[in-house]
Order: sequence, then structure tokens, then C-alpha cells
Amino acid sequence: MMDGLVNVESSQHDRRITVTVTPVTPDVPRGLKGVVVTETALGDVRGTEGFYHYRQYSAVDLAQSRTFEDVWHLMLLGTLPDAAGRAAFARRVTPLRRLPGAVRDALPAVARAGALSGPLAGLRSALSLLGAAGGFRPLYDVEPERRLSDALAATAAVPTLLTALYRLGQGLEPVEPRDDLPYAANYLYMLTGEEPDPAHARAVERYLISTVDHGFNASTFTARVIASTGADLAACLTGAVGALSGPLHGGAPSRALDTLDAIGTPDRIDPWIRERVLAGERIMGFGHPVYRTEDPRSRMLKGIARSFGGPLVDLAVRVEARVEAILAELKPGRELHTNVEFYAGVVMELCGLPREMFTPTFACARVVGWCANVLEQAEDSKIIRPAARYVGPVPPQPVPAA
Amino acid sequence: MMDGLVNVESSQHDRRITVTVTPVTPDVPRGLKGVVVTETALGDVRGTEGFYHYRQYSAVDLAQSRTFEDVWHLMLLGTLPDAAGRAAFARRVTPLRRLPGAVRDALPAVARAGALSGPLAGLRSALSLLGAAGGFRPLYDVEPERRLSDALAATAAVPTLLTALYRLGQGLEPVEPRDDLPYAANYLYMLTGEEPDPAHARAVERYLISTVDHGFNASTFTARVIASTGADLAACLTGAVGALSGPLHGGAPSRALDTLDAIGTPDRIDPWIRERVLAGERIMGFGHPVYRTEDPRSRMLKGIARSFGGPLVDLAVRVEARVEAILAELKPGRELHTNVEFYAGVVMELCGLPREMFTPTFACARVVGWCANVLEQAEDSKIIRPAARYVGPVPPQPVPAA
Repeated sequence: MMDGLVNVESSQHDRRITVTVTPVTPDVPRGLKGVVVTETALGDVRGTEGFYHYRQYSAVDLAQSRTFEDVWHLMLLGTLPDAAGRAAFARRVTPLRRLPGAVRDALPAVARAGALSGPLAGLRSALSLLGAAGGFRPLYDVEPERRLSDALAATAAVPTLLTALYRLGQGLEPVEPRDDLPYAANYLYMLTGEEPDPAHARAVERYLISTVDHGFNASTFTARVIASTGADLAACLTGAVGALSGPLHGGAPSRALDTLDAIGTPDRIDPWIRERVLAGERIMGFGHPVYRTEDPRSRMLKGIARSFGGPLVDLAVRVEARVEAILAELKPGRELHTNVEFYAGVVMELCGLPREMFTPTFACARVVGWCANVLEQAEDSKIIRPAARYVGPVPPQPVPAA
Repeated sequence: MMDGLVNVESSQHDRRITVTVTPVTPDVPRGLKGVVVTETALGDVRGTEGFYHYRQYSAVDLAQSRTFEDVWHLMLLGTLPDAAGRAAFARRVTPLRRLPGAVRDALPAVARAGALSGPLAGLRSALSLLGAAGGFRPLYDVEPERRLSDALAATAAVPTLLTALYRLGQGLEPVEPRDDLPYAANYLYMLTGEEPDPAHARAVERYLISTVDHGFNASTFTARVIASTGADLAACLTGAVGALSGPLHGGAPSRALDTLDAIGTPDRIDPWIRERVLAGERIMGFGHPVYRTEDPRSRMLKGIARSFGGPLVDLAVRVEARVEAILAELKPGRELHTNVEFYAGVVMELCGLPREMFTPTFACARVVGWCANVLEQAEDSKIIRPAARYVGPVPPQPVPAA
């Protein structure tokens, strides 16, 4: 008897069977690519169809017709709320925008320490402090209701933390949250101190909804690995923010906008792109590891951008068309479309967000997905702990005298 | 042709072959247990032999004959230093014990915010601030030499951060590091403000050496997942500290000591243990997921404890013997030995460390292993990003009207 990966060829005619056995090895693809490590009811990305969903709903449909708070409720509590549920959820989460005194008092020091390293490093420190000051408890030591409370407190605080750190970094006083504004509008309000244009607030809200979750990306996986040790929610989120800050994680919407700036005017599009493509350089804002079709987030954000109009949008639409055409000419067969970065940058720029806040704005949304994944992981009691193969010199060798 | 996990039974006599095929699934064992995700030259744990090593040297041999700084040099630079290398390394790392002003100034606020959550939450925030204030750069944006600098700066600062936060929490002023003391002795000095007994300093140093690294545990894996995004070293360490704080990670040496306290006197050993074993409770300080033999760290720490002697050591040695005997009687065939927690707690207690600093003391050592793993991971450019299988209701379902 043998165990192995086997190819079997058989033929009824001559009753011969050829069996080829390759030994089973514990190896998996590099970077665990495609390796299913868990089951989830939170959603999925269908790369070949250009479709992704949160629970059983199309994420793009949700972004068209629901509020950020509705989708937050869907991810954390499992259902879309009705009118009464929406009101109850707002009563619960809105007060959580206000920071505990110990965290608010620490933010000036966090802003000073992080002046060199940008807003994600600041958020990492601030979320860690929030968990400590909020007395977040190890996931495995508490009931699901307490985990949910910590998750709502952390998410509600992220826009307050980010905008306070941003303003402190600019030498401005933080702006207190306003209870009468929804999540996205209040975020823009705390950033500028002015009530945002409703069209801008809704555009940012739709962007936030569209980036709440997106498969098993590296920051989500990080959050789940930490959660699997039973650590508290702040430990999980701090790790996730750290992973998000990595250049290989998910890119940065400001980079695509930098491309548009570098091109400058429509007449410069073709030479600029041809030069990059021929040099084998990547064009920021194009291509995605999972989508083989148009990125559904890009399609939605392009619609929002076009509803605003203006020279930046015109340039973006032309650049998109020319990149696709030039790639089709120079690299035939290689389908490359805009990813979420491209029009997200355009939309955020049009809504008045400073570029250094583009990725932090993404974190305002993704924290919901991280929390939902942490709560789901907490239902599993198995630690995520793989193995490594030692490939160094054979031990033990005698330790030389000091 | 079929692909699958196949059992094949054959017989030459009647030439019949029975083939049973189970479809190949991309599944791996729960929690990735035993799944080799990478290669490493840093070391390994041989559970069935009761042996573990750092690079090509027995970790216990290193703890017997080398300094903490020597082993730190071995893990980060790849070799054990000679006398000149040791002096050069000391000149490089000793000044890094002093914190950047922005971090030192922020620590009182960190200590106040974290009063509820203990020293690991404080370390998590403080390391995040250290990376921000130190301008730690994304791993993939810098050369190996710069990564090494950040790793040395972070490790050298951990004892300073932990002792400062501890003292601030006690209402005491932090103690500045002393350049003339080695890593372990300086740690004890900063904790108490008094130069430690040399025997205590050496005992703690040997404990620290023995816990620098230990296979692909959850905090080490967390650090490597974050590193695989190219994030900066502080992001990796912050996540690792978060994972270490999880109750399923590695236990806590203070718990085993709590067991000895609960037993109190030798005459109470047998009834106390019998009651727990018969109730199916776990005895803290016994059992390890990898070792099937005596834990080599436990053996070494027991030797150190015996060299000090005294009633606590006598009690510990008796409890160990009685637990093994009673388990052999009540649960025959189930080999259970003391793990690293058991005598580590005894040794740290004898050396005057407060119990809430036992796990933080472990972090003073393990940060070396985390850094070595992060630097090794940074040589690989592949992001660690597995997959999940969606098991919720079939999408897309129409989004109900709000």
C-alpha cells in the first residue's frame, strides 16, 4: 500500500493499469499561494469573473445602495440591518468615535515620534494604545459579545485617530467627532474641520464600502494568525496595519495619481507610456494578482469619477484607454486593466483628501474586514503555526571556546 | 486520467488491482500544523530527540559557554564572534540601549494608557513608536546593512523600554542604561536601579540565551508574514509581540510558579496533583507540543535552580518527580515532562524578577530570534498570502432595499 500523488491511466480493453506515484511532501507553493488555510463566511473574490462579495451580497451592489454603517453591520453582525437595526447600531457605535482620555493625551507624543514615518506607523502605535487603554481582553478569555464590543470600539476610533494624528502633524488641533454625521462624512469633517460637500462624502463612503474586505490578503491573514494565539483585538489590528504598510501588500492609491501628474497633459500620454512599457517598467494603477478581468472596484470608481468630471478625470480616462491600447500592441495577449488604485486616487483627490491620507483612508474601511476576520478566527481554537525546514550546516558542531 | 490521493493494493497472484482515489484538495492540516512554508538556516527543534539548535550549534551548549551578545551576533550576523568581533559588536550595540528622545518622552503616556493591559501591550506600543521615531524603513526599500541596523537598534532598546514602562507603572523614574554592564546584567540593573548579583545576572543571561529562538512558533511566523509584505522591522516586531501575548502562544512562566504557590508545602503535593489529574485539568509547566522527551531548556534551567538551592527549588524538584510518578500511575503511557516554563519561573523568581516581568523577560530574548527571522525573510521577495474557501450562502443575492 502506498500513499502519494498518483496518476492512474486505465483502459477497459486490455485491462492494464499504469500507476505512477510521486511521494507526498509537506511542501506547499511558495508564499502559500492558493493554499486554503481556513474556511470563511465573510466573502470571496472571483478573479476570473471580476466579481467579489461580502457574505452573500455583491460588494459593488452594496456600495451603490447601502451606507458604510450598513455594511459594517453586515460584516460584524452577519446581516444587513433594517431601519430599527440601523438606528440601534448608530446609537452603539457613534459614541465610540470619542477617544479614551489616556489615548487622546498620548497622541501628541505619538505624532511627534512618528513625524518621520507617516500615518500608518502612527495608526499602528495609536491602535496599540487604544487596546491597552480600553482594556481589550485576550480573545480566548472572553465571550463573543465582548469581542464584538472591542471590534466596534477599535473601528469607530480609527478615523478619529488618523485625523487627529494628521492634524497634529500639521501643527493643528484635532477636531472632535460630530455625532450627527455618518462615518465617512465625519471622517472628512474631522480631517478639515469643515462639513464636507454631500457628493464628496457619498463618493468617499462608496469607496470605503468597496474596500472593506477583499479575500485573504496579507494584512487579513496577519490579523488571523495573531488572533489564532488568542491575543487581544488590538494585537491583531496592530499587526494588520503593519502588514498593510508593506510595499508588496496592496500598493498605494497616491502612486497612480503620481503617474497622472508625471504625464501631465494628454499629448504626453503616448510617449510616456511607450517608454515605460518598452523599458519593462510597471505602470502604477494597472494589473492585479487575482483579477483577470476589469477590477469591479475600478469600474465603480470610474463611474464616480466621471460623475464629477473635469480635466483630471479626462486625463485618467484617456490614460486608461491608451495604456490598454499600447499594451495590446506591444505586449499582445497580456490583458492588463486598471486596478482599484487608479480611480480611487482620482476620486480621493477630487474629494479633497491629501495624498498622504489615501492609504490611511483605505485603513478606515479595511479595519472592518480585519475585525470581521478576527471575530471569525476566534471561533476556531487552533493556533496557526506552520513549520520550516532547516537547511543550514549540520548540527551539533562544537561551540568554539570564547 | 485522474489526479488524487490514492491507495493502491495489488497482488501478483490474481493480477487484480484495486485503486481507491480521493480527490486532491488544496487543503492543508488545520492551523498549517507541520506544513513547511519556508527554509531557514537559523535553527531547528528536534522534538523526538529533545534537542534544539541555533544555526549549527546546540542552544544549550551556547547557553553554557557563551554570552548573550555572542549568540545575538551568531543569529544576526551568522557567526560566533572572536574577541575582536565581540568588542566591535559591543561598541555598536551598547549605545543603542539609549532611547531616542521622542520615544523616551512618550513613555509616560504609554505607561498611563497601558495600566490596564500589562507590559506586553506597553512593549507593543513602545516598539511601534521606536520604529516611527527611528525612521525604520520598509525592508524591501533598503539594503541588508540598513535592515541589520534597525534590527540591532530595536533589540538593544527592548530592555530599556520594558524596564522604563515597568518603573513608570510603579510610580518610579526609569533608570538609564549602564554601558559597562552586559545585556542581561544591564536589564536587571535598569529594573531595580541596583547592580545585580553576578550569579543572578549569569543565570538570567543563560535563560535568555536558551529562549532566543525555538522553531517556527506563532510569533516568529507572524513576524515573517509581515516581513513578507516588505513592511519595516517595527511593524514585524509589533505584530510578533502581539502574537506572543496570546494565551495559546507559549504560556507564561509565572503560571507554573503560581502552581507551586498553590501547593505551598511538600505534604500537599500528592493530593493537589491527584485532584487536578483526575479532574482532567492541565498542570501548568508540564507538556510541550513538540518535545516528546524532556525539554532541554528545562533540564538546563533545573541545573541552574539547583545551584541556587533553597525551599522553592526543593519544592519544585519534588513536584516535578511527583507529577511524573502520579501521571505514570493514573495515565500510563502518557509521557509528560516539565517544559521551559516550569524551572524558568523558579530561576526568575530566585533572581528577583517580579512575576509580571517574566513574559517580558522572555521577549528580551526572543526579539533576537524575531529579528533574525525577519532579516532572513527579507531575502525572499515572495509575499506570504494563502487563500480561504468561502462557505457562506451562495452569492450574489439581491441587496434588500434600505
